[in-house]
Amino acid sequence: EAGGDAASGRKVMLKCQVCHGKDGIAKLPEAPNIAGQKEAYLVKALMAFKAGERKNEQMTVVTKGLSDEDIADVAAYYSSIKITVQVPP
Amino acid sequence: EAGGDAASGRKVMLKCQVCHGKDGIAKLPEAPNIAGQKEAYLVKALMAFKAGERKNEQMTVVTKGLSDEDIADVAAYYSSIKITVQVPP
Repeated sequence: EAGGDAASGRKVMLKCQVCHGKDGIAKLPEAPNIAGQKEAYLVKALMAFKAGERKNEQMTVVTKGLSDEDIADVAAYYSSIKITVQVPP
Repeated sequence: EAGGDAASGRKVMLKCQVCHGKDGIAKLPEAPNIAGQKEAYLVKALMAFKAGERKNEQMTVVTKGLSDEDIADVAAYYSSIKITVQVPP
């Protein structure tokens, strides 16, 4: 689960924040929140978009510009955000 | 974004909780957290798995057993969970 560098990921995050937010809370209803998301899941999702196995026009464009290291780092950044959940009664 | 019934979604959630948690915090590193996730995104993701457009062995099996109403309801349930985020300094 380690691997990525969250500090370096902050720079990569600049390519993500318009839709997913700097804090990982999405700005659009069809974009997912990624705050505190599992690092391994984020890496898997980004690699799948980059490889064309998972389809989304915007994500295909963005992931084309990301190296494997960028992906590891930005996954580390977003997964480092702490989330607290409260289930409604 | 409305549409689903969160109360009915609690029953559907029983099919999701082993991996994604009752509270939407995933139990496995490769499964995403879905607590407080955008309702429209959850519906889109579940429909894509059901249609085979998005690939994941476990999700393909589970979504085959879900009606469109189940999907709307369980999306409403998980999106109703309140999340609070804290970005590390």
